[in-house]
Amino acid sequence: MTAQNFLTALSQALPEIPVKTDADSLDNWGKDWTKHFAPDASAIVFPKTTEEVAAIVKLANEHGTPLVPSGGRTGLSAGAVAAHGEVVVSFDRMNAIGTFYEADRMVEVEAGVVTKALQEFAESKDLYYAVDFASSGSSQIGGNIGTNAGGIKVIRYGMTRNQILGLTVVTGKGDILELNGGMLKNATGYDFRHLFIGAEGTLGFVTKALIKLEKQPVNLTAMVLGVPDFNSVVALLDRFGKALNLTAFEFFDNVAMDKVLAAGHAKPPFDSRTPFYVLLEFEALSDDVLDVAMGVFENCAEDGLIEDGVMSQSVGQLHELWKLRESISETISVFTPYKNDVSVLISHLGNFIADIETIVKENYPDFEICWFGHIGDGNLHLNILKPDNLSKDEFFAKCQTVNTLVFDTVKKYKGSISAEHGVGMTKKPYLDYTRSQAEIDYMKAVKAVFDPNNIMNRGKIFDV
Amino acid sequence: MTAQNFLTALSQALPEIPVKTDADSLDNWGKDWTKHFAPDASAIVFPKTTEEVAAIVKLANEHGTPLVPSGGRTGLSAGAVAAHGEVVVSFDRMNAIGTFYEADRMVEVEAGVVTKALQEFAESKDLYYAVDFASSGSSQIGGNIGTNAGGIKVIRYGMTRNQILGLTVVTGKGDILELNGGMLKNATGYDFRHLFIGAEGTLGFVTKALIKLEKQPVNLTAMVLGVPDFNSVVALLDRFGKALNLTAFEFFDNVAMDKVLAAGHAKPPFDSRTPFYVLLEFEALSDDVLDVAMGVFENCAEDGLIEDGVMSQSVGQLHELWKLRESISETISVFTPYKNDVSVLISHLGNFIADIETIVKENYPDFEICWFGHIGDGNLHLNILKPDNLSKDEFFAKCQTVNTLVFDTVKKYKGSISAEHGVGMTKKPYLDYTRSQAEIDYMKAVKAVFDPNNIMNRGKIFDV
Repeated sequence: MTAQNFLTALSQALPEIPVKTDADSLDNWGKDWTKHFAPDASAIVFPKTTEEVAAIVKLANEHGTPLVPSGGRTGLSAGAVAAHGEVVVSFDRMNAIGTFYEADRMVEVEAGVVTKALQEFAESKDLYYAVDFASSGSSQIGGNIGTNAGGIKVIRYGMTRNQILGLTVVTGKGDILELNGGMLKNATGYDFRHLFIGAEGTLGFVTKALIKLEKQPVNLTAMVLGVPDFNSVVALLDRFGKALNLTAFEFFDNVAMDKVLAAGHAKPPFDSRTPFYVLLEFEALSDDVLDVAMGVFENCAEDGLIEDGVMSQSVGQLHELWKLRESISETISVFTPYKNDVSVLISHLGNFIADIETIVKENYPDFEICWFGHIGDGNLHLNILKPDNLSKDEFFAKCQTVNTLVFDTVKKYKGSISAEHGVGMTKKPYLDYTRSQAEIDYMKAVKAVFDPNNIMNRGKIFDV
Repeated sequence: MTAQNFLTALSQALPEIPVKTDADSLDNWGKDWTKHFAPDASAIVFPKTTEEVAAIVKLANEHGTPLVPSGGRTGLSAGAVAAHGEVVVSFDRMNAIGTFYEADRMVEVEAGVVTKALQEFAESKDLYYAVDFASSGSSQIGGNIGTNAGGIKVIRYGMTRNQILGLTVVTGKGDILELNGGMLKNATGYDFRHLFIGAEGTLGFVTKALIKLEKQPVNLTAMVLGVPDFNSVVALLDRFGKALNLTAFEFFDNVAMDKVLAAGHAKPPFDSRTPFYVLLEFEALSDDVLDVAMGVFENCAEDGLIEDGVMSQSVGQLHELWKLRESISETISVFTPYKNDVSVLISHLGNFIADIETIVKENYPDFEICWFGHIGDGNLHLNILKPDNLSKDEFFAKCQTVNTLVFDTVKKYKGSISAEHGVGMTKKPYLDYTRSQAEIDYMKAVKAVFDPNNIMNRGKIFDV
């Protein structure tokens, strides 16, 4: 029982750190939103400072106790699941918003700050935190950084990576590194900040971050467009992308629309129903911009790329239109969806989606597919919905077979098997569809540099 | 003579790779723009493909022959100087612009493509390559990536790092890695692309890159402002930065203005002379934007932040105003400047520059200082001009002492001793002013993973 020895040593060395070992807590903090692995944590520890995290890591090294970092537990790849007796390090108590650097439009936050709290802080300063996605009310900044979270505004503002001007991390050896110090320009050797972003806690744990805030967008305006086929979706991205500075370009199919409307989560945008829908957004900085948008709309409609459409005239209508897209995940969750989160170059999207539809239709004619995603980033969410006549286990087993076919197609187009959800445990068996064996070998060697005893989130991304 | 054995083996294995060993070539390709180290290369080799680079690296490992990468040789930190008998790997023959991915606004280029050629290619596609600086006519993309080059448009578009969607590299072990494949979203483990960017060729050599292109900016408009003191420069950044989407915010002092005008490299922007000048630029998307800019200008003038100013009314005037800023480096080069390229948070700029001026005035009252830089990025170029009564050697020796005082001040404000020029050999002794000993130790360990025999740009950034 290495975990027990570790916990005894911890309670002696740092009695001020709360520890939970009751069954409810072990279940609650032992898992994330994925349901593929049963949680089996030994304990949950709740440090308050970077120094306490470093002390925990050093003790864990002494006792050979693996640690799992735990943020908002909204992950979709089992990156924060403790399934093998690990001790969970929760960042729930490290949720302070620290110094605000007004001239730099930058704020220091602890890893446990919830995304929405950061968004609200930014608003209180008349600024904007540009990363946003469905789980922003629960997800924590540390977890966002661990998976380099994306979301719905990437086309304009980039991934979480683009917002991180500095990081404080505790490596697997227990060293505290303060990386980049918030500077926009710093050419002094290897930028380890970017190595820790997206490393899913396998090299070390992020304890603080310096976050870049943006100016608030002005007069955001959305269009929802009914579109006859997927190639038209890509053509619309090209035409609107050239004419406007888009802040979002999302798509979803009629299956998603059906489910969202049936659940009463949003109102129909217009009377027509079409195979696909686009939700695009831009800053209407002037009437000129609105005229440009309307001109593109009319040309696209004449060319048959758009069958129907609507543009928001108020903030209220903007939010109504966004509900069509934002409520998809929650709506389809009752259908036990098997989720894939893939990306390919935009240039390959049309052929890629046609290939996938053929594969699923040929092999699984009774599966209903729901497509949505961030087309402006080449990022597709493929959701396979469970037929009523299959048990959950049978369904997931069949989906594993689909996976291989889908990932073969991702590989054919040199795409990514995980665009923004990370690898964790669910995508670990498929890592070599996107990364070469040489890359994976270098990953393992770099892991050994920062975490020689394999303490930090062991068994995530790859096995060493 | 390991280099001789290496060259013999290379000529046998790969006779198609040109090799130069004449004295002029050894001098030409053996150095960059820094003059602190005498070039002493053993040979220059000119591969044409990534596979040839990999073969060269593998042979160099067999013979223990260190290699120095060589691009446009415009570096300012001796990062591409072969001062210890190394074999230089020139990328001059790897200068092809490859596949253009229109829908992704992305192009693949070889490492030897000159920055300006990429800018011109982008223009030919009605797009824009956003990294620009004084040496864009000579610098090569591979070198830009090695130092994560910055320049005059960082405030809007970010560093070179932000434009790189994929990299092909040859590691120090001779492995070819294709990193990230051009995707905007790819959460499949460690993003080694970002580890190689800014690594100055010490982990491996970049052979190709997938580059993101931007939409062309519209109706760029510049203002040059005469400013009474440095704190007003920072205040103007705040006011104009809030009101406009700036594409540049540069500053220079009256010493720079004096030299540029005396050399006839630009015309006076207005009659007044002031201690500092700001050059700011924005897209005048509409008359509204011009009205906003003029409103801010008038308010700032009323508040005493601006003493005089001018706004460009045409593309010709825009280029005229930029000459004031862009010709500084060339103009002052005749004064044998000792260059420092530092950055601190914008929040600290005012105190930092006051501290530095005090230090130099107190210790070196006979030194003339010329300040300019990218204030919008917290990046200051401090140039100390050689007094006539000092020899070059005496002057450089004294500047080394100034360095320590300057870097102590950088450290006090947690800044960077090299914002965009890299470390190379000139900043190597000072690396620990910005990076902790733990970070430097991890850098060495990561270097050992990718380049275990210390073949790749040995002795740059740090000694192993």
